[in-house]
Amino acid sequence: MNKKLRFIVDMDDVLADASQAIIDIFNELNHTQIEKSFFETTNFYEFVNSGKYQTYRHRLFEPGFFGNLEVIPDAQEVLKELSEKHEVFVVSSATEFPNSLKEKFDWMQRNFPFISWRNFALCGDKSIIKGDIMIDDHEKNLSKFEGRAILFEAAHNHHLKDYERVKTWKEIAEKFL
Amino acid sequence: MNKKLRFIVDMDDVLADASQAIIDIFNELNHTQIEKSFFETTNFYEFVNSGKYQTYRHRLFEPGFFGNLEVIPDAQEVLKELSEKHEVFVVSSATEFPNSLKEKFDWMQRNFPFISWRNFALCGDKSIIKGDIMIDDHEKNLSKFEGRAILFEAAHNHHLKDYERVKTWKEIAEKFL
Repeated sequence: MNKKLRFIVDMDDVLADASQAIIDIFNELNHTQIEKSFFETTNFYEFVNSGKYQTYRHRLFEPGFFGNLEVIPDAQEVLKELSEKHEVFVVSSATEFPNSLKEKFDWMQRNFPFISWRNFALCGDKSIIKGDIMIDDHEKNLSKFEGRAILFEAAHNHHLKDYERVKTWKEIAEKFL
Repeated sequence: MNKKLRFIVDMDDVLADASQAIIDIFNELNHTQIEKSFFETTNFYEFVNSGKYQTYRHRLFEPGFFGNLEVIPDAQEVLKELSEKHEVFVVSSATEFPNSLKEKFDWMQRNFPFISWRNFALCGDKSIIKGDIMIDDHEKNLSKFEGRAILFEAAHNHHLKDYERVKTWKEIAEKFL
C-alpha cells in the first residue's frame, strides 16, 4: 500500500479552460482569429501585451467569466480517481477577482462534485500552501512550493524550461494512477 | 533587525465577532438573554446543542450573516501595525458557507483595507496552510499547524488547556510589537 499523497491542484488552465475563454475574448475585441495552438511558438504575454491589441483583462473581473469556463479534457475522470487514492485539494488564485469567488465554488460543485468544500480553497498568493505535489500552470506558484512541482501546459507557459511538465490529464493518470 | 514572521490570522472570532452574532440569534430564537460572559464557565457547544434549544446553525448559511459582523476590539490597529512589521495573511474557513465568500472579501476590504487580496484566503480545511504563527480560535486548525499556535479566546474555547492563549489584540501587540 503506497502512502497517500496530498495533491494541490490549480483551477484555471488545469481544471478550467481559462486560456480558451481569454483567446475567445481577445479575438472578439480585436477581430482576429487566433487559435490556442498559435501560442505554442509565440509568447502569449508578449503577444497580447505588445500594445497592438486591445486588452482583455477587464473582462476577467466581470460576472460570468469564471462561471462559464469549459472543463479541461479528462480532468473530471482523472481527478475523481486521484481523489479516491490520494488526498486532493483544489486551490485557486481567485481573490484578485472578487466576483469569481462564488462562481468558482459553484463551478466546482457542478463539474467536480466529489471535491468537498473542505478540500477547496480560494487564495491570493499560494506561498502559504503546503502539500506533496502541486499541479499548476504558473511559475509564480510552482517556484515557491516545497513539494514536487508539476507544470500543466498552457498557452502562456510554453517558454518555461525548468519544470516537470504535463500536457494532459492522461499524463497525470499515467504518473499517479 | 528582527526576521519577518509570517502570521496566519483567522477571521471569525479573531477579527470578526461571530460569537456575539450567534449568541444574538440564539437569544432571538429561544427568547433567552444569554450574554457572552456566560460561556466563560459553561461549555458553549454542550449548551447550545443540549437539545433544549432551537439551533442557530441554518442562519450562518443565509446571506448577510458574515457581512454584518462587528470588528473585534483593537484588531484593526494592531493588525495594521503587525502587517507593517511582519507578513500577515488572513485565512478564513469559509467554503462551508458559499454565501459568505464575497461577503467576507467585502468585509475585509471595508474593515481591513490594508490587507491586500494577495494576503487573503478562503478555505475549508486549514491543514494545507503554512506559516510561522497561527492566531485562531479553533483547536482543529491550531492542532495541525506546524508553526507557533496561538489560541484566541472565544465563547466556545474556554475549556482548551494546551495552547498559548490570548484574550485580546492588545495581548498580541504586547507579544509581537
